[in-house]
Amino acid sequence: MTTTQLTLIQIDNYGPWTVTPEPRREMDLQTLQSRLFADIAQFIGSRGGYVFYTRFDNMIAVTNGIDRAAHATLQESVGNRYPVTISLGVDVAETPAAALDGATERLQDAGSAQDKSRTEVLAGTFLDPATTGSEPVHIAHFDVNDATGKYTDQLNEFDSFIHIERSYASLMEYMRTAHGGLSFFVGGDNIIAVCPELSTDAYQDALDHVESDVGVDLKVGIGRGQTAHEAGIAAKHALEDCRYEGTTVEFAQPSVPASDD
Amino acid sequence: MTTTQLTLIQIDNYGPWTVTPEPRREMDLQTLQSRLFADIAQFIGSRGGYVFYTRFDNMIAVTNGIDRAAHATLQESVGNRYPVTISLGVDVAETPAAALDGATERLQDAGSAQDKSRTEVLAGTFLDPATTGSEPVHIAHFDVNDATGKYTDQLNEFDSFIHIERSYASLMEYMRTAHGGLSFFVGGDNIIAVCPELSTDAYQDALDHVESDVGVDLKVGIGRGQTAHEAGIAAKHALEDCRYEGTTVEFAQPSVPASDD
Amino acid sequence: MTTTQLTLIQIDNYGPWTVTPEPRREMDLQTLQSRLFADIAQFIGSRGGYVFYTRFDNMIAVTNGIDRAAHATLQESVGNRYPVTISLGVDVAETPAAALDGATERLQDAGSAQDKSRTEVLAGTFLDPATTGSEPVHIAHFDVNDATGKYTDQLNEFDSFIHIERSYASLMEYMRTAHGGLSFFVGGDNIIAVCPELSTDAYQDALDHVESDVGVDLKVGIGRGQTAHEAGIAAKHALEDCRYEGTTVEFAQPSVPASDD
Amino acid sequence: MTTTQLTLIQIDNYGPWTVTPEPRREMDLQTLQSRLFADIAQFIGSRGGYVFYTRFDNMIAVTNGIDRAAHATLQESVGNRYPVTISLGVDVAETPAAALDGATERLQDAGSAQDKSRTEVLAGTFLDPATTGSEPVHIAHFDVNDATGKYTDQLNEFDSFIHIERSYASLMEYMRTAHGGLSFFVGGDNIIAVCPELSTDAYQDALDHVESDVGVDLKVGIGRGQTAHEAGIAAKHALEDCRYEGTTVEFAQPSVPASDD
Repeated sequence: MTTTQLTLIQIDNYGPWTVTPEPRREMDLQTLQSRLFADIAQFIGSRGGYVFYTRFDNMIAVTNGIDRAAHATLQESVGNRYPVTISLGVDVAETPAAALDGATERLQDAGSAQDKSRTEVLAGTFLDPATTGSEPVHIAHFDVNDATGKYTDQLNEFDSFIHIERSYASLMEYMRTAHGGLSFFVGGDNIIAVCPELSTDAYQDALDHVESDVGVDLKVGIGRGQTAHEAGIAAKHALEDCRYEGTTVEFAQPSVPASDD
Repeated sequence: MTTTQLTLIQIDNYGPWTVTPEPRREMDLQTLQSRLFADIAQFIGSRGGYVFYTRFDNMIAVTNGIDRAAHATLQESVGNRYPVTISLGVDVAETPAAALDGATERLQDAGSAQDKSRTEVLAGTFLDPATTGSEPVHIAHFDVNDATGKYTDQLNEFDSFIHIERSYASLMEYMRTAHGGLSFFVGGDNIIAVCPELSTDAYQDALDHVESDVGVDLKVGIGRGQTAHEAGIAAKHALEDCRYEGTTVEFAQPSVPASDD
Repeated sequence: MTTTQLTLIQIDNYGPWTVTPEPRREMDLQTLQSRLFADIAQFIGSRGGYVFYTRFDNMIAVTNGIDRAAHATLQESVGNRYPVTISLGVDVAETPAAALDGATERLQDAGSAQDKSRTEVLAGTFLDPATTGSEPVHIAHFDVNDATGKYTDQLNEFDSFIHIERSYASLMEYMRTAHGGLSFFVGGDNIIAVCPELSTDAYQDALDHVESDVGVDLKVGIGRGQTAHEAGIAAKHALEDCRYEGTTVEFAQPSVPASDD
Repeated sequence: MTTTQLTLIQIDNYGPWTVTPEPRREMDLQTLQSRLFADIAQFIGSRGGYVFYTRFDNMIAVTNGIDRAAHATLQESVGNRYPVTISLGVDVAETPAAALDGATERLQDAGSAQDKSRTEVLAGTFLDPATTGSEPVHIAHFDVNDATGKYTDQLNEFDSFIHIERSYASLMEYMRTAHGGLSFFVGGDNIIAVCPELSTDAYQDALDHVESDVGVDLKVGIGRGQTAHEAGIAAKHALEDCRYEGTTVEFAQPSVPASDD
């Protein structure tokens, strides 16, 4: 069974700030957003978590193993170094979608994302490590079969991107609806999903759905771990297995085989 | 008539690098990608251009007013500071899509994106400022009507994102197919499109298409300028006009009215 | 008694890299160096440590509370994101200078700083938290009395800097020789020193030395803590006490007073 | 004859900000300072200028070739992305020290560095490119003979740093007093000086002074150019010449020999 701790990271009152006193230079906003994401990726990533940029003013992180004190340090550090502040909502559930429901409610309960007086909220429930199994996080790493050969080296970049984008839109809705899994485009032709426990058939059905829906062939490697990083690195190795063996769904082998097997 | 100079920025041989000698930490890759984008946004943005992260390993920039020497400096500087290098293809055309076709071909002609020996290509045609009119770049800035009230403050963040993502997928394909315009999601509920000359009706048709296709209500401000920044700032002001006046399509007023009008 | 864990961070074979295949743009080197320092400051700082840029190609960190696994993660992450790699030497001693002796020897024993084959060394002794007292780190935060009024608002910036620099050169040598303390200029008119246990008189003697040596008046706040951050924040508060009370040496009050006082 | 345009970059009211409402985490301040410097280094460096971090809250830049509009863009961009703002004073003179005098006065005339209402000043005189010769900027790049062999591989890092620091303190005062030149430590064992026109003997005297004053052996390469970057790259090549030929003072050869030679 999976147990996922999710954190919603929301820039406080960001929309109004971007046009006050008048609209700010777009490339400065892009720089601010992407550097804030990068900083959070370093903070959370070096503690074993994953964060996804999503809409940039709202980011979603898998934070198993990262406690309230670390969240508070991140929030303080952002406030010290940026012209904006962040609020953090955290929750734990079996499925990622349910955890995000809870995390989002923590912030919504505190006020609107565009409420000037609602800043630097830190609210939520944190995982008790004693209550989870040894591999509570499941990460599935998808990519497109031969994206460079079929798209990047053949089409103009925007048309390549349209194909990748279509596959992402199709997969994100399918995984969300069918399984409560959350899928994120992470650049190139890569999609990373945080998932509940799913079978090989369930993953194959997802690939089949995308192929029949938008005509793009994906493959997927799945890993499990104590943290998103552990699960994610295992998923990447499993995806490499797909590449070498020409398969479409591979689960990572347990990293430490039982000694008596 | 529009005249758009587009630059395709491609990280050389990036896919293989991310898994050599074995898969690298995902959060380090995310950090690298988003910081590289931020650096390019500063370089190009401070010279009046716009760049969009697209797939991160391939980025698309509007570079009217930025010459070959500046492109070479950017390429050298990235090579000095990152573990990866970039190739740049540049072209000029009336429609953005045609310019990107040419820019992409410059790189494809030089070799595959995953060809180890094809690095730091700088190839293309640069705009001759003498040959363009005074406002060769058109930028349309779209956003979602009341996204905070309808989505951010109501749904969990992923479900909000699904609605935004749907509207983006619908708009990007429509503008590409109908007009050769290139649309980019830039965070929050914002989409920026680089467009050819289009009428109010053409923009309204785009909004109507997205509404009937995926049920999301957009509005749009359009600006024109010598550079993407000039056109984009004008577009942002026009979008503010939509907000204040409750309209859905607004063109920016000319910033300097002709003296004999 | 103090127990300081120091880490020497050395960019591997950096000098030769900066001129290969020919000298690189100085501003790119400055950017690389200062961003690497910033990243390390975030990594170490968010874990309670302090790092000082020193010569930039060699940085010195106070790392009480940061274990070998965290050092390994930092080293891996830098290697994933920069065109250079780092080696780390770590040691523990009562005085900071003795700890740095040990940390430096770990790297020197592994080869020259300009040995191409000596890369990503991680060697040293880490603190056993069980063996230290509750406040093993002592931080002294010095600044110049009325630097803005006397220098910044009166002299040209370089001549202001000369005065600050003189005070730093004088203090760094005095603290090193007299006490085995390590002092670092951290910008503005601020110097932070990692020190062994020292009396009020010892600090006053240091201030008197600098005044008679180079004619610059300093004051100092001293804090103690489990980590550099705890000690350093306490030192900053103590320095604020100097400001409000017009004194020159202040020790931080214990943050948690004994219950029977 | 040299003609140097210098820009003083000052963070507005920074000291008070760092302790309001209470002292901020030192590593966040270090991160903020060094990233701001890095951003300015990219902005100015990609336009042919040089910037030095000096005290971080005050930075000094050589900005020949960078006009008022570019300075305004830099100032706006920093204001959009940081929690602090910057003021810029600019002046032009034959000697660097005289130019800095003028640049500093522009800011001092506008108010104190810690005046809350004095923010985002942009004041000064910019170079008219038509009035300068072809190589108005002279850059001297010094380093320590065999610093790795004598210091880095022999002493602990702080003691190595003390020797480098001594040589810098000695050289900075000598060049300032004797010639109105401004010298900056740039990391490792490197010092870069912005100088007026000086002879080989004058440079040799500077080296001799440092040797007799603090016992450190330096060498120097000198370059001239239209911009700091051009002069600085030439100086680096000249310093490489010193290395290969075992000499102590080398001037860069003209990059484009006269056609009739």
